[in-house]
Amino acid sequence: MDWINRDHNILIVGLGLMGGSYARALKRLRYRVTAMDRDPEAIAYALQEHMISDGSAEDDGRLIREADAIIFALYPGIFPEWVETHRHLFKSGTMITDVTGVKSCIVYRIQELMPEGVEFIAAHPMAGRELSGVQHSDDRIFRDANYIVVPTDKNTAKGIEWCGMLGRMLGCGRISVLSPEEHDEMIAFVSQLTHCIAVSLMTCSDSTHLADYTGDSFRDLTRIARINDKMWSELFMMNREPLLKQMDTFLEEMTRFREMLAAGDTEGMRAKMRLSTERRAMFDKRS
Amino acid sequence: MDWINRDHNILIVGLGLMGGSYARALKRLRYRVTAMDRDPEAIAYALQEHMISDGSAEDDGRLIREADAIIFALYPGIFPEWVETHRHLFKSGTMITDVTGVKSCIVYRIQELMPEGVEFIAAHPMAGRELSGVQHSDDRIFRDANYIVVPTDKNTAKGIEWCGMLGRMLGCGRISVLSPEEHDEMIAFVSQLTHCIAVSLMTCSDSTHLADYTGDSFRDLTRIARINDKMWSELFMMNREPLLKQMDTFLEEMTRFREMLAAGDTEGMRAKMRLSTERRAMFDKRS
Repeated sequence: MDWINRDHNILIVGLGLMGGSYARALKRLRYRVTAMDRDPEAIAYALQEHMISDGSAEDDGRLIREADAIIFALYPGIFPEWVETHRHLFKSGTMITDVTGVKSCIVYRIQELMPEGVEFIAAHPMAGRELSGVQHSDDRIFRDANYIVVPTDKNTAKGIEWCGMLGRMLGCGRISVLSPEEHDEMIAFVSQLTHCIAVSLMTCSDSTHLADYTGDSFRDLTRIARINDKMWSELFMMNREPLLKQMDTFLEEMTRFREMLAAGDTEGMRAKMRLSTERRAMFDKRS
Repeated sequence: MDWINRDHNILIVGLGLMGGSYARALKRLRYRVTAMDRDPEAIAYALQEHMISDGSAEDDGRLIREADAIIFALYPGIFPEWVETHRHLFKSGTMITDVTGVKSCIVYRIQELMPEGVEFIAAHPMAGRELSGVQHSDDRIFRDANYIVVPTDKNTAKGIEWCGMLGRMLGCGRISVLSPEEHDEMIAFVSQLTHCIAVSLMTCSDSTHLADYTGDSFRDLTRIARINDKMWSELFMMNREPLLKQMDTFLEEMTRFREMLAAGDTEGMRAKMRLSTERRAMFDKRS
């Protein structure tokens, strides 16, 4: 698929926060963007906002058959089933990608379902908001975001290049390539573990009477505690082993720190703080 | 002390990030600000930047005797000793406050050391930066910050009012009053626990190779992992019991969440996420 050809149709399946943000970005680049979503209001909103040229809340085979590229922005739990039901409608040559936040348990299954001549190349734009729904979609979320292409040995060089190019067109700041397993281990640490921490901090005691006293650090740490429970519980369950491993590593380390405090081991705590400071500085340098 | 009288001398003892930020704010209001700090370079810097009118790195009794108000911005570990050594120089009528991040183990000791006619009224401006030293001081840190007056039954109504007025003059957004014990319980949760979490997240495994993949959530959560190890280890040790209690509450809750994930209890996780979302929304409403 030639990305310079602006007549090509790009179909977005699942028009929520992410799907809507893709639509806005691609429409701005003057592609012909269409969408399918079970919710008629999501489609109506996107049409009214001129985010898409055409869309349907029905099982519309026409939109699928017309698509030169398809972007899946569905909840991970229903994604494989959707593909299984509709794959006979994919036309040969169609390039297919996704935005799913977990990969190992998705990518291989989806690739096995692809008809001859149709390539699925997985991607994960590391962007989002603490809100959901197409009404909150915003293509500025891609600005400076990390975009990860997640190929398997079934993917072609052309497919990998196409997928990375899509990330660049969205405006993402850094395009990387990781295997599904590398991706899931990384995401368990940098994203899923941090969400578990933020949720546990909000639920461990009723802190709402302390809202008047909190500084920026508490607010920053718990910003992601406003969480889409359906989507994130699916993501956690689909990446259970890597996430449990990261949670255990964190819980053990924090328990060690707690024991240092209980024992009055000031030097031990200071050594941890110095290591923490040194490591965190590396993140600022690269940002 | 009449705050309208701009001829009054305000002495800042300890010219680091916080002391320097107080100096900048009060100098801007045209008070006569002086400072004492063991580090001659800190004093020289502040004089050169016109943040103070006079200052000394020596044990300068003159600056203490001239002070109508004294603000202590020392490390908590050396604060009581400093007061014990110099209290004979405090003139009657002097108002004294501090910026210390822990209260119960400090306030009563300091108040017992006060000479006749000198009032110590504790305060905690909940403002700061992930940097230390007078060179990084900035009076914009007070903007919209919470400022907590922490009186005991030894304080006068006039002292409490004076202290709150100082917070307003710095530009703090909300002035509250808490007892030392209430303050320490609150600070253990909203500040110290969050710093323990951020440090443990950075030290639990070497994540620096993941810097290219992190999104805003990881960066926000670990911003405070760049930490002044000397000051924070002192603060933790001086508030050990309340902090241990909060750490245990958090560790137990996160372990519960881990067990839900291990058991595949999706509904249990979703209930936690919904509670978390609801509670966190309260913090946004009040911000």
